[in-house]
Amino acid sequence: MTASVDKKKTGGLAGIIAGDSAICLCGAEEESLLYRGYRIEDLAKYASFEETAWLILRGRLPNAKELLAYKEELSRLRDLPVSLKAILEQIPKNANMMDVLRSGCSLMGHFEPEEKIRGEFEIPDRLIACLGSMLLYWYKLHQTGKRINLQTSANSLAGHLLQLILGHPASPEHIRALDTSLILYAEHEFNASTFTVRSITSTMSDFYSAICGGIGALRGPLHGGANESAMELIFRFKNEAEAETGILTMLKNHELVMGFGHRVYTTKDPRSAVIKDWAERLSQEAGDERTFAIAEKIEATMWKEKKLFPNLDFYSALVYRYIGIPIEMYTPMFVMARISGWSAHLIEQRKNNKLIRPLSHYIGPPPQNWLPLERR
Amino acid sequence: MTASVDKKKTGGLAGIIAGDSAICLCGAEEESLLYRGYRIEDLAKYASFEETAWLILRGRLPNAKELLAYKEELSRLRDLPVSLKAILEQIPKNANMMDVLRSGCSLMGHFEPEEKIRGEFEIPDRLIACLGSMLLYWYKLHQTGKRINLQTSANSLAGHLLQLILGHPASPEHIRALDTSLILYAEHEFNASTFTVRSITSTMSDFYSAICGGIGALRGPLHGGANESAMELIFRFKNEAEAETGILTMLKNHELVMGFGHRVYTTKDPRSAVIKDWAERLSQEAGDERTFAIAEKIEATMWKEKKLFPNLDFYSALVYRYIGIPIEMYTPMFVMARISGWSAHLIEQRKNNKLIRPLSHYIGPPPQNWLPLERR
Repeated sequence: MTASVDKKKTGGLAGIIAGDSAICLCGAEEESLLYRGYRIEDLAKYASFEETAWLILRGRLPNAKELLAYKEELSRLRDLPVSLKAILEQIPKNANMMDVLRSGCSLMGHFEPEEKIRGEFEIPDRLIACLGSMLLYWYKLHQTGKRINLQTSANSLAGHLLQLILGHPASPEHIRALDTSLILYAEHEFNASTFTVRSITSTMSDFYSAICGGIGALRGPLHGGANESAMELIFRFKNEAEAETGILTMLKNHELVMGFGHRVYTTKDPRSAVIKDWAERLSQEAGDERTFAIAEKIEATMWKEKKLFPNLDFYSALVYRYIGIPIEMYTPMFVMARISGWSAHLIEQRKNNKLIRPLSHYIGPPPQNWLPLERR
Repeated sequence: MTASVDKKKTGGLAGIIAGDSAICLCGAEEESLLYRGYRIEDLAKYASFEETAWLILRGRLPNAKELLAYKEELSRLRDLPVSLKAILEQIPKNANMMDVLRSGCSLMGHFEPEEKIRGEFEIPDRLIACLGSMLLYWYKLHQTGKRINLQTSANSLAGHLLQLILGHPASPEHIRALDTSLILYAEHEFNASTFTVRSITSTMSDFYSAICGGIGALRGPLHGGANESAMELIFRFKNEAEAETGILTMLKNHELVMGFGHRVYTTKDPRSAVIKDWAERLSQEAGDERTFAIAEKIEATMWKEKKLFPNLDFYSALVYRYIGIPIEMYTPMFVMARISGWSAHLIEQRKNNKLIRPLSHYIGPPPQNWLPLERR
C-alpha cells in the first residue's frame, strides 16, 4: 500500500513499465483487480485462500481433488525444523515481528537449501505453510514460556493461524474473515515488495534471498506497515466528531494519513469494499459500532477534503482487531498472504530473466583532482 | 557485475533512469568511474578502503585526524554480540557463505535494532567492521572446532579479514592488494543490489532489511557471484591453447562466460586495468605466470570473438586466489566492500524518499467468469 500524499507521477518509477507479467491485472480503467483473469470479488466470495494461492502459483484453478490434496499438503508442512526452533528461542522477546520473519526465512535457507529442492512449488508451499508457525512459535514462547504444538487441527491456513494466536480453535465466521483478508492480500502486481523480489531474483539468486527481500520491503510503513498505522489512527479518536477534527488537523499539518490512496488506483481500491463489509459485520457482532463509525467518519473526511479513498489496509485493520490478532501482527499477516504472489513473480521472473539494473541521474560533483591526506 | 550476453537495451530497466544520485558517476563517455567526484584510479593508488568508505558515506575525504579516528572506531567494532555468536554456531557447516551473511545481518537487527541507534553512520560503520567477523567466526569454528578471537592486531579491514582467514598477519603487499580490491568494489551506482537496497528503503523500512536485500541480490551469479564463476572458468584450462579452444566452444554453445561485459560500460570496465595489474604482480610473486597467461588468453579471445572486455570480477578472482582467500569467500569479500556503497545509497534515498513502485505490462488472460469448484 502507498501513503496518501504526493500523487505526482514522477520519481520512484511511477508510471514506468518494468516488465511483462501474466499474474495480476491491477488498476485497469474500471479500477478492478484480477488474479490470473479471475475477479477479486469472485475469489473473495467463492474461493478459499488455498484455492487462490494455487491459482496464483499454478496459473489455473484447482479441481476438488487437487484442492483437497493441496490443503492436506500445506497442513503437513506446518511444523519447523528442530534447529530452527532452537534459534527462534534465542531471538529476543522485544524483537520486531517482521524482523523475526525475515530472520526465520533466511535461516530456512540453511536448513532446507534450494539446491536440495525438487519441485518448482516446493519452497513456496513450504513457506506458505510454515512462516506463520515461525512467528507464533517465537511469540508464544516469549508470552507464555511454553513451546506450542505447531500441528493444529485446523484445515486451513486462516484457521491454523488463528488457532495458534488464540490458543483454541476460532469460530468459522472469524476464520472466513481472515481467509478473505488473505485472499485480498495475496497478490498485487509490481508493488514495492514484489518488485524487490523480482530484482533479487534477476541476479539468479536463490528463493530465500528473494523472499527475505520481500519481507524487508513489506516491513516499511509506506507498504505493509500501513495496516498497523491505520489501526493506531482509528484508536486515536473517541468519537466521530473527534475523528473529523483530528483528521482535518492532520491534513492541515501535512501529516501522512496511512491507509488512504494508492499509487495505481485513482478513485477506489476494489479490495476495500470487500473488507469493509467484513469490518461492519464483525463490528456489529462485537457490539462495537462506535469504532466502525469512527472509521467511516475518517473515510468520509478524507474523501471530502482530499478525494482520497481507503485502500485495503484501512478496514483490514478493523477486521484483524475484531478477530483477535495483536496489532503488531497485522503486517506479518500480510506476509502470510503475499508469499504466494511473491513466489509466483519469482517463478515468472526466472522463466524469462533479465537482470534488473536501471541507471541513476548524476547530481554529484564534477571530477576532482586528488587531494593528498596531508593537505586536507 | 552483469553477464556477457544479451547487450540489447530492453527490459530489466536497462537505460531507464530510476532517480538522482550524487554518490557515483559510472560509465560516462570516457568510461570512467568517480566516487563523490574522485577518480577510481586515484583512490586505488592513494587512498585506503577506510578513506574511501568515509568518502562514500560522508561525501568528502577525511583529514588525517578523522581517518585515524575512523580506523580506530572500526577496529573497536569488530567483535560480535555473544548472542549472535551462539546462533552462528548453530548454522550448519555446509551453508552457503552468502546465506550466512544474510542471516547474520538479519539477526543483528534483533540484537542492535535501529530504534536504539543514535548517529546516521552508526549501523553502516558497525556492519563494515563486523560482517567479516560473522562469516569468519562461523567458518573457522566449523573448519577447526575453535572459537576465534575477533579482535585482531590488524589496523585495516583488509588486514583484519586476511588475518582471520589465514590465522596469522598477512604481508603488507597482500593486505594492500585486498585493500585495493575493496576500494574498487565499494560502490557502483544503481547496480542490482544497490537498487534493491533503495527499493526496500523506499517503503521506509529499516537499515537491516535493506542490507539483507542487498546481500541477497549480490548472491546471484549475474551480480556478485560472477567473481567465483570467473575463477572456476580460469581453473578449467591447463594452458593457453586449451583456454582459447574452450572459450570458442563455450561461445559456440551460447554458454555464459562470466566476468565479461557490463550493462553500463561498452568498451572497458575502468576498474579492470587496476586489478589486472595486481593480478599480474601477484602471479609473478607466486611464480604462477601460467594461470595469468591463461586468463589473458581468455581475455584476448573474448575481445576478438565478441568485443567483450573483462569486468572487475575477472581479474579480482585471480588476486583473491593469490592472497589465499577460499573461492567460496570471493562474493562475501564483495559484500565487505559494497556495504559502504549500499549504506550511502540508503541514506541518500531516505533524504528525498519516494516509494519505488513501477508497473507491469499485463500479458495474462482476459477477465474470466467464475468457475465453481464442482465444475472444474
